[in-house]
Amino acid sequence: MKKKGTRAERELIHLFHNNNWGVIRSAGSGSTPLPSSDILVSNKKKLLAIECKFIKHIKKYLYPDEIKQLKEFAEKFNAEPLFAIKFQNKGWYFIRPEELNTSKNGNYNLSLEEAKKKGATFQKLIEVN
Amino acid sequence: MKKKGTRAERELIHLFHNNNWGVIRSAGSGSTPLPSSDILVSNKKKLLAIECKFIKHIKKYLYPDEIKQLKEFAEKFNAEPLFAIKFQNKGWYFIRPEELNTSKNGNYNLSLEEAKKKGATFQKLIEVN
Repeated sequence: MKKKGTRAERELIHLFHNNNWGVIRSAGSGSTPLPSSDILVSNKKKLLAIECKFIKHIKKYLYPDEIKQLKEFAEKFNAEPLFAIKFQNKGWYFIRPEELNTSKNGNYNLSLEEAKKKGATFQKLIEVN
Repeated sequence: MKKKGTRAERELIHLFHNNNWGVIRSAGSGSTPLPSSDILVSNKKKLLAIECKFIKHIKKYLYPDEIKQLKEFAEKFNAEPLFAIKFQNKGWYFIRPEELNTSKNGNYNLSLEEAKKKGATFQKLIEVN
């Protein structure tokens, strides 16, 4: 699962790179205690702070802390916070934190169906930015 | 030497963080073949792509490729490329690529004396940005 997540993240990095976006991948939580998004990408005009998620099932759950940390990090860079969610054997969907559903227990979630409805595909994302 | 370089980089990351700048540290060349600077920092208005160097001696040599890669990476983010150079037991000096000296063999170099003359201290850097 972790391996597939890493592979998915690498795939996303190359997608941006091949479309001539600048990409920096975070060294992660192990080496520095400072929270940051998985990747930060830019096409010179726009800066996107992206947290990558790989999903085997049809629904993804997210914790309030993940959303808070992503937003706080993005704010410091004046970047747009985004979740890049890849459902297994499907493409990527890019979702803004406020587009996630709130569960009764205070967590957040997103189904494949909703991702298709609300999210932007990679092609769409680079077209609008 | 490598250990001290890592420690110096961590020190710099905390300097920016403690002054309320956003910081992302690159995962480095091992995990992705894409060139990036060691860190990318922002105070919302300004984005700096920084390559960190720790120096035991009084002079630092840099290769043309290092300068080229830093500039190319910074350009994709519309960021300012900077070298953060720490001479052992001295503070940090921030130098723009064009402020380095060119050696006869085509490499670049910078001495502590020149760094003091041309470079910005950390305090100066965050004041002007």
